[in-house]
Amino acid sequence: MIRFDLISAVPDLLTSPLEHSIVKIARTKGLVETNIHSLRDYSTDKHRKVDDYPYGGGAGMVLTPQPVFTCIEKLKQEREYDEIIFMTPDAPVFTQSDANALSLKENIIILCGHYKGLDQRVRDSLITKEYSIGDFVLSGGELPALVVVDAVSRLIPGVLGDAESALEDSFMDDLLDGPTYTRPAEFKGMKVPDVLTSGNHANVEKWREEQRLEKTSRLRPDLYKKFLNKH
Amino acid sequence: MIRFDLISAVPDLLTSPLEHSIVKIARTKGLVETNIHSLRDYSTDKHRKVDDYPYGGGAGMVLTPQPVFTCIEKLKQEREYDEIIFMTPDAPVFTQSDANALSLKENIIILCGHYKGLDQRVRDSLITKEYSIGDFVLSGGELPALVVVDAVSRLIPGVLGDAESALEDSFMDDLLDGPTYTRPAEFKGMKVPDVLTSGNHANVEKWREEQRLEKTSRLRPDLYKKFLNKH
Repeated sequence: MIRFDLISAVPDLLTSPLEHSIVKIARTKGLVETNIHSLRDYSTDKHRKVDDYPYGGGAGMVLTPQPVFTCIEKLKQEREYDEIIFMTPDAPVFTQSDANALSLKENIIILCGHYKGLDQRVRDSLITKEYSIGDFVLSGGELPALVVVDAVSRLIPGVLGDAESALEDSFMDDLLDGPTYTRPAEFKGMKVPDVLTSGNHANVEKWREEQRLEKTSRLRPDLYKKFLNKH
Repeated sequence: MIRFDLISAVPDLLTSPLEHSIVKIARTKGLVETNIHSLRDYSTDKHRKVDDYPYGGGAGMVLTPQPVFTCIEKLKQEREYDEIIFMTPDAPVFTQSDANALSLKENIIILCGHYKGLDQRVRDSLITKEYSIGDFVLSGGELPALVVVDAVSRLIPGVLGDAESALEDSFMDDLLDGPTYTRPAEFKGMKVPDVLTSGNHANVEKWREEQRLEKTSRLRPDLYKKFLNKH
């Protein structure tokens, strides 16, 4: 059972993804608990402001330290947290191995970045891990936080059914998945590769391995190199 | 003005992120239109099934070709699409340059992967671009699709106010953002760096550049190398 506390300046953005798909299943099974905290509720400013201009000038607004501190300190008084994560583009990139590690934790705070960033003093003194989800700019850390919750939730034993075993997924062994086909055997004149309907299990496995190697080397030479170094 | 058509087997997951933050602003300004299509509505199966077992065996279910074909063909009859994108982990990784390119388009379909994948015949015959958002496994392509919509929407001229200029963001020049600070000048004994309150603009710029170089080389040696090669 993992408890996620998500802190955001745009909390309503977070609702529908947590109410559907794997996270909903994990919550229904009692294996994941998610709590959304609105940063504004913790602001002592009379207008409940959570951002201010950056020192030194420049475009964009910065999340002020007070509301974040107040919110996180309140949560820390209630229970011990294994990680206090800040989602931000200027951080190491989140990968499957981070998801694997987080899936063994119990209490996780995820603070969503917004505006131009977060006062560095909060990052230095409260945050235990920072993740980006990739080299693109988003309007906030909410979607990245949801990505982390999804990637971690599906790894908790009991969340996925046997038929969906996480072990066969892309990235579990540094190779991309190969092509998949399902019925009908012929669709608009396009046929499923013969090998897949041959019933010869060894040939299917061989074909799949070849496809994965070819596809990974073509689409993701970086991953392929990593794979070759390991094997 | 960009029109996004999002096709999903879990359409309700997509609602709240499109109703908040930058995408909502872009929609209110008439600069972005988003349409959600439920894959199940296009299934001719009597139980409105959209998935089936993979040929050749193995864990997980595969999205069947018929509902996806029917949905995309209907949309293509209504207007011309610049891109028909499939979000899937076995694809090149989406970056800011992809967001930049897509922000110049008019009509974009984004098909969200789900279950174990999509019948390869659909990918071969209908999809024009495939993107992963990173090396982690999610329960579906819905969050990745929302990431693309967010990253692209904020680049459309007029969506962001001047104060939030996209030009100063991380990745626009291959460097991460440096630390930011806002009021108060002292918080819980922690002070803002003197240079930022000095009023000396040249020193502020110099300090920021140094911080960005140091941070990028420390946290993202891959990006730093790319930066050095370019400059």
